[in-house]
Amino acid sequence: MAKLNQLVYKELGIDTQHEYNAYMHRSCHICNSEGFEALTRIRISHKGKTIVASLNVISSALLQTDEISLSHSAEQSLDVSTGQMLTISHLSPIRSLSYVRSKIFGNELSDEQLGEIIDDIVSGHYSNVHLSAFLTACASNQLTTKEIIGLTKAMIKSGKRMQWMSDIVVDKHCIGGLPGNRTTPIIVAIVCALGLTMPKTSSRAITSPAGTADTMEVLTQVDLTLKQITKVVSDQGGCVVWGGSANLSPADDLLIKVEKALDIDSEGQLIASVLSKKIAAGSTHLIVDIPVGETAKIRTLQAAQNLRREVEKVALVLGLHVDVVVTDGAQPVGRGIGPCLEARDVLAVLRNETEAPSDLKEKALLLSAKLLELSGLENPGDGYEKARKALESGMAYDKFIRICQEQGGFREPELAEYRHKIKADCTGTVTKVNNRTLAKLAKLAGAPNAPSAGVDFFVTLNSEVKKGQTIFEIHAESKGELSYALEYYSKIEIITIEQC
Amino acid sequence: MAKLNQLVYKELGIDTQHEYNAYMHRSCHICNSEGFEALTRIRISHKGKTIVASLNVISSALLQTDEISLSHSAEQSLDVSTGQMLTISHLSPIRSLSYVRSKIFGNELSDEQLGEIIDDIVSGHYSNVHLSAFLTACASNQLTTKEIIGLTKAMIKSGKRMQWMSDIVVDKHCIGGLPGNRTTPIIVAIVCALGLTMPKTSSRAITSPAGTADTMEVLTQVDLTLKQITKVVSDQGGCVVWGGSANLSPADDLLIKVEKALDIDSEGQLIASVLSKKIAAGSTHLIVDIPVGETAKIRTLQAAQNLRREVEKVALVLGLHVDVVVTDGAQPVGRGIGPCLEARDVLAVLRNETEAPSDLKEKALLLSAKLLELSGLENPGDGYEKARKALESGMAYDKFIRICQEQGGFREPELAEYRHKIKADCTGTVTKVNNRTLAKLAKLAGAPNAPSAGVDFFVTLNSEVKKGQTIFEIHAESKGELSYALEYYSKIEIITIEQC
Repeated sequence: MAKLNQLVYKELGIDTQHEYNAYMHRSCHICNSEGFEALTRIRISHKGKTIVASLNVISSALLQTDEISLSHSAEQSLDVSTGQMLTISHLSPIRSLSYVRSKIFGNELSDEQLGEIIDDIVSGHYSNVHLSAFLTACASNQLTTKEIIGLTKAMIKSGKRMQWMSDIVVDKHCIGGLPGNRTTPIIVAIVCALGLTMPKTSSRAITSPAGTADTMEVLTQVDLTLKQITKVVSDQGGCVVWGGSANLSPADDLLIKVEKALDIDSEGQLIASVLSKKIAAGSTHLIVDIPVGETAKIRTLQAAQNLRREVEKVALVLGLHVDVVVTDGAQPVGRGIGPCLEARDVLAVLRNETEAPSDLKEKALLLSAKLLELSGLENPGDGYEKARKALESGMAYDKFIRICQEQGGFREPELAEYRHKIKADCTGTVTKVNNRTLAKLAKLAGAPNAPSAGVDFFVTLNSEVKKGQTIFEIHAESKGELSYALEYYSKIEIITIEQC
Repeated sequence: MAKLNQLVYKELGIDTQHEYNAYMHRSCHICNSEGFEALTRIRISHKGKTIVASLNVISSALLQTDEISLSHSAEQSLDVSTGQMLTISHLSPIRSLSYVRSKIFGNELSDEQLGEIIDDIVSGHYSNVHLSAFLTACASNQLTTKEIIGLTKAMIKSGKRMQWMSDIVVDKHCIGGLPGNRTTPIIVAIVCALGLTMPKTSSRAITSPAGTADTMEVLTQVDLTLKQITKVVSDQGGCVVWGGSANLSPADDLLIKVEKALDIDSEGQLIASVLSKKIAAGSTHLIVDIPVGETAKIRTLQAAQNLRREVEKVALVLGLHVDVVVTDGAQPVGRGIGPCLEARDVLAVLRNETEAPSDLKEKALLLSAKLLELSGLENPGDGYEKARKALESGMAYDKFIRICQEQGGFREPELAEYRHKIKADCTGTVTKVNNRTLAKLAKLAGAPNAPSAGVDFFVTLNSEVKKGQTIFEIHAESKGELSYALEYYSKIEIITIEQC
């Protein structure tokens, strides 16, 4: 028989992502004790494990009064299944939340306090409301350089850390916001062909139409174990895999979702996020690409310069060699937006096809050159020519195919069945491209969940277009997704054409 | 047949309070388009009404791929039932969130911007994550006096406004945190008996064991229509009803829940919250009681003085006469904590019983005297004696019973069946009472949902206790609730006894 503070588990199959939610019947005595007027949180234990969850109330027959259910991630964390007993108790105040309050009121946090906050976040002790308050306080009260360093260290410590045989391990990171722009697989191919070690752990998209891992997954497997990754890197000098299973800086994965919902960037938080992931991945030399543009993440040169200075300061203290490159972020790079369309562009560049997008090729060469020079493999000024030869000779393509084969086999991308052409409604010059609405359109067409969905984008800034000319084409894998994207397109503007 | 952007509604009975949540099957095409990696929000329309909801995903058979469900408050707002069609579309950015971001980065907000934020909050366009960011930004960047005034006006405007026949309408407000302390029904009885107009709209508890409305509901009905309230006030000069149905400053009800979850107090937000509710309720003369104590909401005299000054500045601009009284918040006022136990104390004072708690009586007299003087009914210094006579003569009790009868009939409180005595484990002097753990204990015993649950508290600060003497008694309506409270009690301290 159940004890008084126990309830019987029942699976309902509700997914609230990382947030731990508990569901109880309105007439359950624990629900009555805790009350449901505020955003109530409770402690739930099962076989020695304990989590903290937010309470949602069920007023239907989905649950009986002696039953409890959990959201998917909470269920996994407690490793519980239908019919088992859970013990419920009142949640005492979480100490690190008092540090968050301290930050809200403008105080500098110590390394230990930041460490405790990050540990509690990784343990799931913060609800989204608390994550939001922490992020807002960091943005409002500007983290000091000391705090950014403390936060970066705490985020590294909260997850795993990778180690490699090579003394020099290179990486690149782009401070996002630009559709397409899939340079990473090309850069890995070039610099590894030339002998550098670049074990690239990439992310999947959160709010964008594709992350590097999504695009790469079109061409090969990306979901490798640590052991498999080590083998590929040892044989080929590099890889392009999904970083999720490596558990690098896991706090970042939780914070970033709330940050996207708020659409705020705390500069300190951003730096800690990028650098902690790279250091945890074992990088020693890093190129940071900051595209600047009206609809990119960073909008002004001034903001890019400030960010560059702070990145350099923090990297110096943490022993990471870094070179920050400010690039043009006024329009997409490459033509395809969405996993398969971007994979097609990447292959076209690697295969030196005549129709390969030259902007994508040039940007990949530029960043490869910077990596070759930063790592000391090439003298300053020699990197570009070396990179170009590696690419144009087919060496890079050869390396890329070997990497794919070792990750689980290479496959060609396939394009989507449902397409809808968008044509210019007047003749004139393209004066503006909105990266944000363009990315959103590709996403609503189904990317990246539907890998061949997205947008194929045919014009560039300052080019002339004729009335009736196809300016881009929406790709989708189902009628419903195409229709959903078109409904959105009817309300927004992507390209501004100024009539002559 | 359903159109492509439509889904069929199915009721699931999930209550997430004020937050609008939508539930869709993982394989639904709209879920696929929108993605579920971030905290996705969508627009949902039904018969001309539109809401914004956060997306949760169902991976079980609770929903089919062409079905959608909503949390309880969202379902009510759209007035939808099982089988009806809902239209789903992508959510464009909400403009007022850019003002929240502006505040995060330290800018002063205009009256218009604050107005738009509050309107969006009342429309349900902010998720808890956004409410959290707004509250945190207000606390981090300190609202200016101009902003507090703008926020107060916006909050008044967002709801209804009550009007009364009398030129002078009095009210009182306590900046909470003190268990028991149920002076309001006594004050209303005294000042109305003496001829003032005091139409008291009270709140229910959110995280405390009882609000004035919960306690009053033990004795009479509090859930009255506006018409009924007007009649009671016209006949008796006052009432003590629940303010919820009056829809006064509804933004406040949403913000306060998130504020409690964060356990932060933005001073500006607090002032706007209190003053907007009172002005919307038609008050012209207000006494604000600020109890100061280590475990009260306001912890230092300095903080109380700052708050007083700011309240006075804002009230002056808004044309509200206000008198701020700083009182002792070191321990509970009265003996009972929980609706029935507090109602018992209120009646004991009104009936002049010999065992009535004298601290409760004295505090009610003090605040009544202030109201009589602030309103101009009595000269400064004469209020106390007038109030005392009204109470001790039975006039106040007589008025109270009439008010109860007109609100729907008077009834005696009944005490709980399950009780557990807590005894002193040593002989000594009471040197500290923790208001917070004490209130929490009463709440976990079931108060206010179980009205007779709570704590009966028998000692006062600096009093002597003997080992084995009952220092308080926990009351509960069920074994399960008593057990849940005792489990909490085993982990915390409420009273500090220093041994002689």
